[in-house]
Amino acid sequence: MSLKRPQVIIIGAGFGGLAAARALAKADVDVTVVDQRNHHTFQPLLYQVATAGLGVDDICYATRGIFHRQTNARAVQGRLVGLDPDAKRITLDGGAELAYDHLVLALGAVTADFGVPGVAEFGFGLKNAEEARQIRTHVLKRFEAAERMSDQRLRAAAMTIVIAGGGPTGVEMAGGFVELFDRVLRRDFPELNVDTARVVLVEGQDRLLGGFSARLGEAARRRLEWMGVEVRTGVNVAEVDVSSVRLEDDTVLHADTLVWAAGVRAHPLAAALDLETGRGGRVIVDAELRVPGHAGVFAIGDLAAAVDEDGAMLPQVAPVALQAGRHVAATITAAVDGSTGPGTFRYRDKGSMATIGRNAAVVELPKGLRLTGLLGWLAWLVLHLVMLIGFRNRANVLVNWAWNYLTYDRGSRLIIEADDPITEPVPR
Amino acid sequence: MSLKRPQVIIIGAGFGGLAAARALAKADVDVTVVDQRNHHTFQPLLYQVATAGLGVDDICYATRGIFHRQTNARAVQGRLVGLDPDAKRITLDGGAELAYDHLVLALGAVTADFGVPGVAEFGFGLKNAEEARQIRTHVLKRFEAAERMSDQRLRAAAMTIVIAGGGPTGVEMAGGFVELFDRVLRRDFPELNVDTARVVLVEGQDRLLGGFSARLGEAARRRLEWMGVEVRTGVNVAEVDVSSVRLEDDTVLHADTLVWAAGVRAHPLAAALDLETGRGGRVIVDAELRVPGHAGVFAIGDLAAAVDEDGAMLPQVAPVALQAGRHVAATITAAVDGSTGPGTFRYRDKGSMATIGRNAAVVELPKGLRLTGLLGWLAWLVLHLVMLIGFRNRANVLVNWAWNYLTYDRGSRLIIEADDPITEPVPR
Repeated sequence: MSLKRPQVIIIGAGFGGLAAARALAKADVDVTVVDQRNHHTFQPLLYQVATAGLGVDDICYATRGIFHRQTNARAVQGRLVGLDPDAKRITLDGGAELAYDHLVLALGAVTADFGVPGVAEFGFGLKNAEEARQIRTHVLKRFEAAERMSDQRLRAAAMTIVIAGGGPTGVEMAGGFVELFDRVLRRDFPELNVDTARVVLVEGQDRLLGGFSARLGEAARRRLEWMGVEVRTGVNVAEVDVSSVRLEDDTVLHADTLVWAAGVRAHPLAAALDLETGRGGRVIVDAELRVPGHAGVFAIGDLAAAVDEDGAMLPQVAPVALQAGRHVAATITAAVDGSTGPGTFRYRDKGSMATIGRNAAVVELPKGLRLTGLLGWLAWLVLHLVMLIGFRNRANVLVNWAWNYLTYDRGSRLIIEADDPITEPVPR
Repeated sequence: MSLKRPQVIIIGAGFGGLAAARALAKADVDVTVVDQRNHHTFQPLLYQVATAGLGVDDICYATRGIFHRQTNARAVQGRLVGLDPDAKRITLDGGAELAYDHLVLALGAVTADFGVPGVAEFGFGLKNAEEARQIRTHVLKRFEAAERMSDQRLRAAAMTIVIAGGGPTGVEMAGGFVELFDRVLRRDFPELNVDTARVVLVEGQDRLLGGFSARLGEAARRRLEWMGVEVRTGVNVAEVDVSSVRLEDDTVLHADTLVWAAGVRAHPLAAALDLETGRGGRVIVDAELRVPGHAGVFAIGDLAAAVDEDGAMLPQVAPVALQAGRHVAATITAAVDGSTGPGTFRYRDKGSMATIGRNAAVVELPKGLRLTGLLGWLAWLVLHLVMLIGFRNRANVLVNWAWNYLTYDRGSRLIIEADDPITEPVPR
């Protein structure tokens, strides 16, 4: 590679960043993908790691491996710590400086607690593989603890999970947990009365799945309730403590676990780098996804405040990031070639889907088409398998899904923790 | 279950403890298996987790799930903290007390550093899934760090692994790492000169695989050296520091990673419980694997100082634990039935095996039969697949092995770490 080729730096190896990098495979540029982790995380299946259906390694893929065969791209692990838009240069942690001609910011979003007391301290987010593993570990440990408790109220709290947020993540988590309780932990803990275990889904709006049609939101609610989830809409979480969740209507839910799926905001680095941000901390971009006043800098995906024809902000979902990544790659390619670029970014909504549990999902397609039940579920399965990166991950996920489906088991219900019997105090 | 049935408590869900529990499936007893973890760990494949070939979830199996179909057994997670042999009662952490008629101690072994300075602080053991994951994480992070270093010597140290101990674990680790370096990390890090990466295997005896015939030890050495491992026999590690390993001959190896596979000792709980112990902290047992002076208490596996016909201590390997577990189960069954028990425990050595790398293993069978190369490797593969618990784990391992074999890839080269972008200091 000649150093004289235009340098494209992409910050973030999520859906948007990877889509941009791959779409630049044939461009006459050098691509560097920087991510704080050494892997891409397939976020749509994090909830299955949290509910013990899949292992962490099934849904993560080493970023460097993605570019073995793309000769104009490389991946490095690092954190962006500085941006000099005049010198067109970024700084990574450790001090390395990289010059860019085109910079694509695709940092994604982080969990937002909206200042609700106790969420940061006692709640669990679900934005990366380690957080998913922490949820799994915590829930399994609370069941182990419950078995040793004599106080029935404490026992029930140990077996109760509150999920804040009735969007796709919250709905999928709720379905996943109630199935884990009913079909696996009931058999694992014969001495516990798992009927007293509760999964409570709390949503501030008056319906679930706000991004979907009302009919599908209602279908999801009915299905979840049929499965045993308690759905509470029209009320927000007011306060969280180690073993209770208080709602705004002063209901107190005795629960040792709160999963916070009630909101995200753009990665805080955007504001720290003095980029202009809008609602949710999202970086203001123009119609071509450029950051105004910063030549050669683009922002895409959950980080960016891209808008549709009506000026409404696009949802923070994977398809927006994928399409924006490809769009920016086309814009950069055109700039390098001296040809005409694609111009304004237009998001084409191909639909949304959420799985609810065994044999059930809701799928919203354009033009009012909808799928529910088994057909929706099969569509969900196929799409997620196809979107996973790497044959190995697909094969592993398929094996585990087949196993879970046929046996009603969850092979990953493992508590993996550090523990050094040598240095531990030995009891007498 | 009536409480009047004889109570059998088994401490430890390793090979020995599980074999005993399963062999009691038809006995008229209640079996309780207690383990400090909630899962069985398939220790023979831990080295593949450490070398990024398998995920943690592939080789662990939830203990409670093992007994879903065995109606006279249950599993609990807990630590033994007290033993009252007179009252025939044990205490678990948290205070729960359990009465036993028969107690099987199968606690296994822990890493022994033999007092070598720095091993406990800077070395990595390989006795459980979390330790294997820590090795994988550390090695991958050192490669990421190496890429940012300008000092060639520091770079080489970051890419150098010293493995202490030339038994099967050390040999398998060495082969696994040199393959990871050569075939995967070389492609992942095109800017590093991976030729300067070293895998050094250090063994105090003058040959590898002391438990095998000299010919197989020599075959393993030749194969490892052909693959690129530096084998140093007849010298021990004298001292370990954060980025160096000093040998007893005063050679200093500049290495940021030391894996300690040079020895184990019986779980320290044995001595803490005032049981009589012999060499390596192993619990003294009689010919029937009973703990003398403690009615109804047995010790098996790596924890026990069981001996062969000549009075020599049996090796601390899985087959001894498996056979001892079944033997103790037969003894207990006979005691419950009032029939004649199996009497003296006789270990039948069916052979030993160690894999060295792709297409290569050494297998020592009784009567001087030996396998090496591809045939040994296939035997090793089949045996380990069969011994794994659970169809799901077998299928996952098979998928990953096929993937690794066909592509020379290692899908699990993932650095999974906690990290909370919300609370992290945001750089300016």
